[in-house]
Amino acid sequence: MTEVNVPSVARELLQRLGPELVVTGEDVLRYCHDWHGDVQSSALAVLRPRNTPEVQECVRAAGALGLNIVPQGGNTGLVLGAVPDMPDHQVVLTLERMTAIRQLDCDNFSAVVESGIVLEEFKAKVAEAGLFFPLTLGAQGSCRLGGNVSTNAGGVNVLRYGMTRDLVLGLEVVLPDGSLFEGLSSLRKDNRGIDLKHLFIGSEGTIGIITAVSVKLLPAPDQVATALLALESLEDAITLYRHARRQCCDLMSAFEFLPPLAFDLAKEGIPDLVLPMAAEHPAYVLMEIAGSGLVDMDDLMARFVEYAFEAGLVLDGVVAQSQAQARNLWLIREGMNEGQAKRGKHLRTDLSVPLSRIAAFVAETEAAILADMPDVICVSYGHVGDGNVHLNVLPDLSGDIDAQICRAKQIANRVLDGYHGSISAEHGIGRLKKGDFSERLPEVQRRLNVAIRKAVDPAMVMNKGCQIDL
Amino acid sequence: MTEVNVPSVARELLQRLGPELVVTGEDVLRYCHDWHGDVQSSALAVLRPRNTPEVQECVRAAGALGLNIVPQGGNTGLVLGAVPDMPDHQVVLTLERMTAIRQLDCDNFSAVVESGIVLEEFKAKVAEAGLFFPLTLGAQGSCRLGGNVSTNAGGVNVLRYGMTRDLVLGLEVVLPDGSLFEGLSSLRKDNRGIDLKHLFIGSEGTIGIITAVSVKLLPAPDQVATALLALESLEDAITLYRHARRQCCDLMSAFEFLPPLAFDLAKEGIPDLVLPMAAEHPAYVLMEIAGSGLVDMDDLMARFVEYAFEAGLVLDGVVAQSQAQARNLWLIREGMNEGQAKRGKHLRTDLSVPLSRIAAFVAETEAAILADMPDVICVSYGHVGDGNVHLNVLPDLSGDIDAQICRAKQIANRVLDGYHGSISAEHGIGRLKKGDFSERLPEVQRRLNVAIRKAVDPAMVMNKGCQIDL
Repeated sequence: MTEVNVPSVARELLQRLGPELVVTGEDVLRYCHDWHGDVQSSALAVLRPRNTPEVQECVRAAGALGLNIVPQGGNTGLVLGAVPDMPDHQVVLTLERMTAIRQLDCDNFSAVVESGIVLEEFKAKVAEAGLFFPLTLGAQGSCRLGGNVSTNAGGVNVLRYGMTRDLVLGLEVVLPDGSLFEGLSSLRKDNRGIDLKHLFIGSEGTIGIITAVSVKLLPAPDQVATALLALESLEDAITLYRHARRQCCDLMSAFEFLPPLAFDLAKEGIPDLVLPMAAEHPAYVLMEIAGSGLVDMDDLMARFVEYAFEAGLVLDGVVAQSQAQARNLWLIREGMNEGQAKRGKHLRTDLSVPLSRIAAFVAETEAAILADMPDVICVSYGHVGDGNVHLNVLPDLSGDIDAQICRAKQIANRVLDGYHGSISAEHGIGRLKKGDFSERLPEVQRRLNVAIRKAVDPAMVMNKGCQIDL
Repeated sequence: MTEVNVPSVARELLQRLGPELVVTGEDVLRYCHDWHGDVQSSALAVLRPRNTPEVQECVRAAGALGLNIVPQGGNTGLVLGAVPDMPDHQVVLTLERMTAIRQLDCDNFSAVVESGIVLEEFKAKVAEAGLFFPLTLGAQGSCRLGGNVSTNAGGVNVLRYGMTRDLVLGLEVVLPDGSLFEGLSSLRKDNRGIDLKHLFIGSEGTIGIITAVSVKLLPAPDQVATALLALESLEDAITLYRHARRQCCDLMSAFEFLPPLAFDLAKEGIPDLVLPMAAEHPAYVLMEIAGSGLVDMDDLMARFVEYAFEAGLVLDGVVAQSQAQARNLWLIREGMNEGQAKRGKHLRTDLSVPLSRIAAFVAETEAAILADMPDVICVSYGHVGDGNVHLNVLPDLSGDIDAQICRAKQIANRVLDGYHGSISAEHGIGRLKKGDFSERLPEVQRRLNVAIRKAVDPAMVMNKGCQIDL
């Protein structure tokens, strides 16, 4: 990087904040791409504050220069929420240097943590104290907690523990004018008026920068029992789920449905995988229960599977007898994704419908897609308990792949709209889904969204281009 | 009521909306008092819409006449949130005629209900379908669901199921300009931008009128096990709670601490109550676990109590062997309240602190009050799992009762502030706690509150005088 390439406004930022906090030149680029590497953008500079007052300083300096700020955690999002799209007007503000655990309160089952801590590191620290932070994501080795909160991340444990929102007790947020929202409460029950923290959770950095979070912790579930069950239909999976909630006292930590094709895909993804049963039934459920202490999870699972057989809900089943066997069952779920990837570019979706309608939605959508494009392959699977469906479509490789993907997405969204479903069950809106979101946003909601953003960020300093166009 | 007593603006409302929707005259008064009957106010009229379009019509008519609207559910709140305080400018809008269950979806464990349904009636309807709506309050025979949502009601099951907020999937809200926020989603996982429903939950009718709610339901817990345990100290109750969470897989539905004085007060409140043990230990815990299906709650409770004895956490204990015995244990908790009432006017509080600090907070507050007023009696009890403390003070009846109550409240709030506690764990702010709330509200939060209210309700049509002064 040579001085001559730095635009004057970046030089001005450098002058105001100093080289310790401001990155310019080519080093900026590694903060300006998306997680998959499909998009490479740029920005005027990257701001790297080390603590909350420095975040305030950065926000004030950027605001004073009329710049727009894109806050960034681990930049593992899938919808371009933290990727700048106005290179000449935006700076990235990364929280990566703010990684302290400010407080760990074992009796209150809570912690206060800075936004930049990597999720996996935080979970490990908490585990050392015998506690458990349940948020579990594929990206957990890279994503940062503040990003999880600002995107209201989901993950595989939502069924039992909720979205990130449900794990947050309080927030510290630097507002667009540089002032500080000091809401790091660790109270479990606090009913003082409008709960402002919920505005920031899921706002994807559009109205403030979350600098620290107070979160709930739980006892670590030291017992896990896992089973793979074969069923007559996806409808039966919904019925089985209803029975499982009641019979297992809501102790389920996963309840995934899989199509028979999952077995083939898993073998393609992980060739030496040993399948525990043949793929000869119409639907499968991968079920996990978890707990701690005096309730015996293996015994509970064994009795539930027996109950389900007797009730005629299950045709065949395997209950893991060891951690290794449990791991092997999960490899079918994970291998299926790898198998899809090996078949090449395909449509991946992140949809949700009421869980009572999953079977009808999947049947109708697959039928509509196959009626239009008989040579594609539909692979539908997901989280029954959340109503979250990944309805993926593998295109016919001899045809126009992008056109098939585009067409399949249109059809899926059209059917989804009839089910009042969500085009983003867990990934957020960012910049990628802004168009699809906007098309479906009722006028009253749009007005409220705009009114709130303008009320909190009248100078429009924060993450322009994300979620909605103002 | 004679026509001559109706102010012209009320006549105008009558003309616009018709007598079916507008109540004037003396009949207005029964909508204008607080739950305890301490406050009797008045209003220009009461509006009684039967459906959502009529709510919109009422809001538009009131807005056009420059009136302010106080929305009201069952009017069982304890902080005057639904009691008008500007009789010449306000109308009450009651939801009492909107009581339909629009949808009950057993497979999705959800229901869509109109705001005016009485909580107990809703719970009974849901129970007929084998499901459970966990919100449980003293006022449930009178309070209405929309009021519970707009105040984010708490109750005795918060420990297990959260506040009302945690049970809401979606809302339908008539906004201050009469437009309709259509957010009655039944999705479990939906991550499309800022989640606007959270603005309305807990806003106590200051930014809109909740007309219908989509709520989560659960499997009915058909097994309940109850125990009363004697402990060395309140500190030990916190430790016991930590062990109970781990050992009982978070299946606790109540974990209440009681002082030894609870036994005397319960006998005073319910003279023929048979006490299950003598009040000879420093602290007591009333613990309940609940579940359904294949986990045996009686067995789990028996094993947990044995575990707690062996760990030296418990000095004495009684495990209920029947529903009647369980009911008898709860009568100590309920009788204690009646006993306090029989001793006359006293300070009642609804405070919360981090649960790790309950013991220190109670000790410090009681010591400070007794140092100042040696002849009062402190009765501290509450929900360990929520950090919710009812620190009540029975004054010396030979002194100035109101002065002692006022002084004790000041001291409790001063100590509470040092613990970063909440002056309203579950009751809300309304008009009664507005002053105490306002004194403690950081300037940044005040600005955000005001900005949001002005953004959503620029004409200030909604519940003026509630929560904050604009």
